[in-house]
Amino acid sequence: MLTVLFAAAPALWDEYRPSLLAAFDAAGLKARLVTEAAPETVDYIVYAPSSSLQDFTPYTRCKAVLSLWAGVERVVDNATLTQPLCRMVDPALTEGMVEWVTGHTLRHHLGMDRHIVNPARLWDPTCPPLARERPVAMLGMGELGTACARALRALNFPVTGWSRSPKTVAGIPCLHGDDGLAEALRGAAIVVTLLPKTAETENLLNAARLSLLPEGAVILNPGRGAIIDDDALLAALDAGRIGHATLDVFRVEPLPQDHPYWSHPRVTVTPHIAADTRPASSSHVIAANIRRAEAGEPLLNQVDRRRGY
Amino acid sequence: MLTVLFAAAPALWDEYRPSLLAAFDAAGLKARLVTEAAPETVDYIVYAPSSSLQDFTPYTRCKAVLSLWAGVERVVDNATLTQPLCRMVDPALTEGMVEWVTGHTLRHHLGMDRHIVNPARLWDPTCPPLARERPVAMLGMGELGTACARALRALNFPVTGWSRSPKTVAGIPCLHGDDGLAEALRGAAIVVTLLPKTAETENLLNAARLSLLPEGAVILNPGRGAIIDDDALLAALDAGRIGHATLDVFRVEPLPQDHPYWSHPRVTVTPHIAADTRPASSSHVIAANIRRAEAGEPLLNQVDRRRGY
Repeated sequence: MLTVLFAAAPALWDEYRPSLLAAFDAAGLKARLVTEAAPETVDYIVYAPSSSLQDFTPYTRCKAVLSLWAGVERVVDNATLTQPLCRMVDPALTEGMVEWVTGHTLRHHLGMDRHIVNPARLWDPTCPPLARERPVAMLGMGELGTACARALRALNFPVTGWSRSPKTVAGIPCLHGDDGLAEALRGAAIVVTLLPKTAETENLLNAARLSLLPEGAVILNPGRGAIIDDDALLAALDAGRIGHATLDVFRVEPLPQDHPYWSHPRVTVTPHIAADTRPASSSHVIAANIRRAEAGEPLLNQVDRRRGY
Repeated sequence: MLTVLFAAAPALWDEYRPSLLAAFDAAGLKARLVTEAAPETVDYIVYAPSSSLQDFTPYTRCKAVLSLWAGVERVVDNATLTQPLCRMVDPALTEGMVEWVTGHTLRHHLGMDRHIVNPARLWDPTCPPLARERPVAMLGMGELGTACARALRALNFPVTGWSRSPKTVAGIPCLHGDDGLAEALRGAAIVVTLLPKTAETENLLNAARLSLLPEGAVILNPGRGAIIDDDALLAALDAGRIGHATLDVFRVEPLPQDHPYWSHPRVTVTPHIAADTRPASSSHVIAANIRRAEAGEPLLNQVDRRRGY
């Protein structure tokens, strides 16, 4: 009988408990799921940084820490964490992200906002260009970025991928490094950021890089708030050089009521909904990883501490 | 040397003349393109119903009338038209339609409007269901309907097609006839209408059929305005039974300034932009059909007068 410790905000317990138990059962795991246990008896930890558990030292028997979230920046630098750490890669999370990114890309591509809010009853039948004439830069070509790039490509958008290190993705030209980033930004009508938060990506979109974008470019950020230098973005929006920013993630969440993003006419705030982890599907991902570890198979989606994701 | 008569609103001449000449040239056609000619000398007519040409009788030598538009309801019943009539099936038009339908489906699916207009700065991180949990009914499974159904299916929406006569489309379950329509409407969270305008489809979405839709369903009409009984739709929107209607086509266009659709909080008007014919690509379609006719090959997209499209 395995002991699995659920270490996350208490509010998540009711939501996840039945899903996790059902997923353990479906995976043929004999496990008890608890919110408290003597540390030395714990085999696995299901983890979110909202938990009070911050010192992993006493969990001497623990074979893996399984993150409930895709982003692990709030736990990866915890010096007490020496156990293997796995990110959440949930197909439902990917689906939700693809829907948000595809939807908001098409919204800006089609210029929907001027029809959704049109008090002057203006009838202007000017057609937008076709998607195949609207280049998109996808910054970050991990699991989520690649899935979004493919979905946009299937709708004919010319998508260029960018990542820190070289990547090869069928059908998507990929750039890398600083020069590659400049090239990707110079050619993009719409930029989507799906990069992990690391020391290298913080403030990646600063004033200098924003100035490389063509006049009127649109930014979508469903990834991590810290990727964007907020003051630089606000200045570029004020100047009208950036056409619009639709942001799902912020340095402080909920976004404070007095933050200038709320009132800016060129900014749309969405409340961190682009990719939610869903209990049913993510519980199966966690159960599958425990089953693998127990069978001596390598863990899936294990975090590389050196890279930070 | 062929004589091709351009019979459309004079405003279109400047836009289409260079594209058509270039397309004729690319297709190896020796043709002069004119806006006036002795009727008995005309080999082909490029046609839009905005033209002053309404009597086709004297065009005795004309081998085909090539419509600039996909919809032919304003010309198909012209009793003087005995020459073959071809609809416009332009890949660019299909692409534009897929973009509009996919974009507005995702807009409603994601509930974007409450983020685009959010003066109360409400932060409500409730996630929408996934696309795979949001059934879509596609009314009309011709060229455009099928392309849109496939694009939505690729984004995981469960799509059911409906057409008057039975159809088989790989990957899309298709219903037909009156019973099939009732079944399609009962199961749909989002309904897209892409039917041709015929005597049978006029007011297809009347009060009785609208009442079959689940509470809060959304209607997208990028097809033909007359498919919808406007008074019945407004009553269903007033009652809150229909959640929203996004309409691109109307019985009278531009939509009159005093039409209740403009002010209705559950209606979005787009100005007949879902699928525009684009001179460059549609000129190639017309040139290809002339080349086929001259080579003795069957015309593409010839209208069946009996069906009306």
